[in-house]
Amino acid sequence: MPDNLNTRLCDAVDAAFDAQVEFLLDLTAHPSTRGNERSAQDFMAQELTSRGFELDRWQIDVSEIRHLPGFSPVMAPYEDAVNVVGAHRSETKTGKSLILNGHIDVVPPGPLDMWEYPPFEPRVDDGWLYGRGGGDMKAGLASNLFALDALAACDLAPAADVFFQSVVEEECTGNGALACLARGYTADAALIPEPFSENLVTAQLGVIWFQVHLKGRPTHVAYAGSGSNAIEAAVPLIQALHEMEHRWNDEGRRPPDYAQMEHALNLNVGKIQGGDWTSSVPAWCVFDVRMGLFPGQSLKAAKIEIEQVILDAARENEFLQNSLPEIVYHGFEAEGYALSQDSSKKAALAIDTLDQAHRTATGEELARQAITATTDARFFGLYADTPALVYGPRAEAIHGFNERVELESMRRITKATALFIADWCGVEPRNGATERVAASS
Amino acid sequence: MPDNLNTRLCDAVDAAFDAQVEFLLDLTAHPSTRGNERSAQDFMAQELTSRGFELDRWQIDVSEIRHLPGFSPVMAPYEDAVNVVGAHRSETKTGKSLILNGHIDVVPPGPLDMWEYPPFEPRVDDGWLYGRGGGDMKAGLASNLFALDALAACDLAPAADVFFQSVVEEECTGNGALACLARGYTADAALIPEPFSENLVTAQLGVIWFQVHLKGRPTHVAYAGSGSNAIEAAVPLIQALHEMEHRWNDEGRRPPDYAQMEHALNLNVGKIQGGDWTSSVPAWCVFDVRMGLFPGQSLKAAKIEIEQVILDAARENEFLQNSLPEIVYHGFEAEGYALSQDSSKKAALAIDTLDQAHRTATGEELARQAITATTDARFFGLYADTPALVYGPRAEAIHGFNERVELESMRRITKATALFIADWCGVEPRNGATERVAASS
Repeated sequence: MPDNLNTRLCDAVDAAFDAQVEFLLDLTAHPSTRGNERSAQDFMAQELTSRGFELDRWQIDVSEIRHLPGFSPVMAPYEDAVNVVGAHRSETKTGKSLILNGHIDVVPPGPLDMWEYPPFEPRVDDGWLYGRGGGDMKAGLASNLFALDALAACDLAPAADVFFQSVVEEECTGNGALACLARGYTADAALIPEPFSENLVTAQLGVIWFQVHLKGRPTHVAYAGSGSNAIEAAVPLIQALHEMEHRWNDEGRRPPDYAQMEHALNLNVGKIQGGDWTSSVPAWCVFDVRMGLFPGQSLKAAKIEIEQVILDAARENEFLQNSLPEIVYHGFEAEGYALSQDSSKKAALAIDTLDQAHRTATGEELARQAITATTDARFFGLYADTPALVYGPRAEAIHGFNERVELESMRRITKATALFIADWCGVEPRNGATERVAASS
Repeated sequence: MPDNLNTRLCDAVDAAFDAQVEFLLDLTAHPSTRGNERSAQDFMAQELTSRGFELDRWQIDVSEIRHLPGFSPVMAPYEDAVNVVGAHRSETKTGKSLILNGHIDVVPPGPLDMWEYPPFEPRVDDGWLYGRGGGDMKAGLASNLFALDALAACDLAPAADVFFQSVVEEECTGNGALACLARGYTADAALIPEPFSENLVTAQLGVIWFQVHLKGRPTHVAYAGSGSNAIEAAVPLIQALHEMEHRWNDEGRRPPDYAQMEHALNLNVGKIQGGDWTSSVPAWCVFDVRMGLFPGQSLKAAKIEIEQVILDAARENEFLQNSLPEIVYHGFEAEGYALSQDSSKKAALAIDTLDQAHRTATGEELARQAITATTDARFFGLYADTPALVYGPRAEAIHGFNERVELESMRRITKATALFIADWCGVEPRNGATERVAASS
């Protein structure tokens, strides 16, 4: 790729950067928590349509993905689970095709009084954009889109098909990305700008979600001895799960990407609800757990062990032994994925191409990172033979209060992405550009 | 009181007993949980009006009771906090006046799937009436009302003022009974048919409610180590509160009525809520606690000790020490009350009168019981110099699933109540009865 083009693409990103920040402010203002993604997806669809992409917008049909590997159980209604894909169809198809993926869903903001500013009234301060989802991962959607804009600004288009995906459900199941696969969107590589500080993610964990439902006989608290407290009965179960967590992190069990991490697998009790009256001994309690898994660790075996741990602990509890807990899988059943283990030429080439784009855009080496979370990358890597490059801007407090993303980092990622697209896909004249050039000459 | 009248009153209760059960079925069908008492109070008002009682129906005005002893903090809106009183004004006023008190509010039913039949579709089976609130304490409201009906059926009325009270807020603050006092309803004795198995309650505990609010920094679970889990931070605090509970139950601290009870004071974690996303480290958690107090135990000292215990435990916790818990008093600040300690002649006479009524109605001695709960009796006994007799039918699973009340027990209580009224208040011809007798002779 001529240096001249690199420079033109980076200049184009700079020229549009104010507009990109405006776009990110607009997008982050849509409170696209689970079940509320529609307005954000409408916004994305409008942006894609106005740029001339071929638009595909559909509600996920669970019956079409239920049987596929990587499917996670669905607990919530899917009326609002709408994916948006904008397709660029190359006229020459001389290069390698690409999926630019990002998720539109954001996690709940938590108590609003713990935010310095309202989570869905994003603002820029001292080089950072604040707001729920600004980092995770609307800045990534912005960098994907404005990287394509940079090519267009140079009157170029990718010389291969490119599918811009704005998916739902990344934060709880991954079924949005899975539905894109099921709909036939495949390519030679995928790029997912999740906010991991401009590092290339070489491995990600699997994640499993489960709920533990405890039930028992309630009673007036005057007779507390004859009832059993379902809230307090949760404590020994959580303790037993933490002991399992420590076993799973044993040095001997760690795969190469995580060999140096003392505690990559985190067990999180993320939510609890129990009882409904202060003076009634609570008869039920539900707590929600997230547990990490190493790449290569069997989901099925993990579930068996989790169930065993919970039931064993319950059997030692006087109350629970007569009313064993129910375990409900209510989200992620996600395997781990390691790009580092993909020995294909395609993967090597994709990484090399990104390496070079990053170096050109930033002047620095592309650092590698094994992350302790999951991303939608697993669908491309594990189930579609597509190397998935997770590479996005620097953000802080994702899933926390005052989440923020560094704007200069988003600029660098946008430039690197534009260079990557131009190199991986090649370029052709933008549709209509040749004619315009001909007409003006 | 002539035996003849006793027999006639008991016969009148029997004659109306099917109607009384129908009444209880109707009343129990009103789901009068906190904030939803209106339809049940409308029903009570209608029943009182149709019987010719002078009706008083008013919404509690917090500003009128806030300054009074026995007031408990109000957390919920009071739009639906409506008391109903039906007054009988005696023409002769030759006897002792009486308050017949009962509460209309019921505690939440909990998960419906744990009920054999829906909690607000009451039914009779094998001598028991099932339904939320049937025992606690709509059967008591029924026995109060149908005891008065028995007098009327004998063309008699109490020869003293009688105030039939259907109050709200018994299950969380007692502010309903307090509002009746503030409105000027006083009498020489009060009878409250709470469901304690036909025993006379000689002492009741104090109760304090508090919420513990925990807050912290949330984060993506991938970085669980750098955030702090507010749900799990609750565990050592609950542990410390249980240690306090054990100290408070020490033998040396027990007053006479509770000397033989190993564990009269129960600490109950009745409700918990924390977090909102399985894969976010929860940044907040709130748990609700009910703790018992002995009669004579200072509420103020109890609060100081509770706060000390929580804060001391929090200071030992790495996360909480930087974000100390907030303690909110959200309901009961109720002192204990012991009728057994009321040495007045009035109290002795009221107990004797009930003793005799119970013996006549049931053929058995009136048993005594110190209970491990609170009732509205404290307002009459502690703040209005009025002996309060808590004496009601046998019920099971109050605050539990499949709550039920024994109908024959309600019948006995109704008879004993009718005899008690006739003896305590004396009788006079029913308003209009003399004229009717004159007209027909």
